[in-house]
Amino acid sequence: MQILKVKRLTPLAFAPFGEVLAFDPERSRLVNDGRALRSDTDARLDPGSGEGSPVLAVYRARGEELPCRLATFERHPLSSQAFVALSAERFLIVVAPHGTSSLPDLSRCEAFVGHRGEGVNYARNIWHAPITALGADGDFLMFMWESGCSEDCILHHPSDPLLVLGLEQAQA
Amino acid sequence: MQILKVKRLTPLAFAPFGEVLAFDPERSRLVNDGRALRSDTDARLDPGSGEGSPVLAVYRARGEELPCRLATFERHPLSSQAFVALSAERFLIVVAPHGTSSLPDLSRCEAFVGHRGEGVNYARNIWHAPITALGADGDFLMFMWESGCSEDCILHHPSDPLLVLGLEQAQA
Repeated sequence: MQILKVKRLTPLAFAPFGEVLAFDPERSRLVNDGRALRSDTDARLDPGSGEGSPVLAVYRARGEELPCRLATFERHPLSSQAFVALSAERFLIVVAPHGTSSLPDLSRCEAFVGHRGEGVNYARNIWHAPITALGADGDFLMFMWESGCSEDCILHHPSDPLLVLGLEQAQA
Repeated sequence: MQILKVKRLTPLAFAPFGEVLAFDPERSRLVNDGRALRSDTDARLDPGSGEGSPVLAVYRARGEELPCRLATFERHPLSSQAFVALSAERFLIVVAPHGTSSLPDLSRCEAFVGHRGEGVNYARNIWHAPITALGADGDFLMFMWESGCSEDCILHHPSDPLLVLGLEQAQA
């Protein structure tokens, strides 16, 4: 069984897979008559060839604990996909690049932990585990383009599930 | 001075101006091997004639208290605009339809209070006050299409500011 150790979610570490979405005081500017700071993310929102319609949904994810086993990966050939934690205090992100044979390259798999108010934007075709709240159940906002056809979401179930260890377990 | 009393944010009350974004158990379905509920919003994400690029940003808004005076309205001719409260516990939404002379019809102005995890999607060209956190400062996620030109945001400063009363003040 492949063992993955979680890392902290940072824009640099996540860059091969997409972008981190969070308020960044370093790249913010005053708006609204000086009563708000606007921080533009660098999310590359990608509608692919434009076959889909933009969709906003709210996911209520059951809380899981680390270590946990991952048996499912998915990718979206038609669109990037963004998730932002609304009520989830912590959440697990597991990503892998697209390898040969249209399967995830699990040898380059990475796991990250994000916190409430943060999010990620998966680049189109990046393999990722379904969004996972850690601890209590949590809500997430999701944005992507969907066409309503089976190409919206491609699933893969690795023959050998991955085991994801928390920071404490990884340090032990 | 025109006085506005806030209402609770409900999909029906907000329907003339856009859609409420929130988890709705009544319209959710199991996804992710049964480990999450997905609740699709009915947000009409509207890129207008397609001149802009999709943008995700995080706003950190200074907390205000009710009653408060509103001196600024804005509308977006090229796009709908969605805001979702990430850390703001409560937030103020003030909206008005597009009237004659390209100005807001303030006689049909409405004010609503939303809560954390909720959001709104302003229909294209609906006049609205800048997003306003109530109580402590709060973060919001914003989604719209922007072109980078002045048509992205049209401002209007009413000659007579509006006064928005809280629920308690309205009932007193």
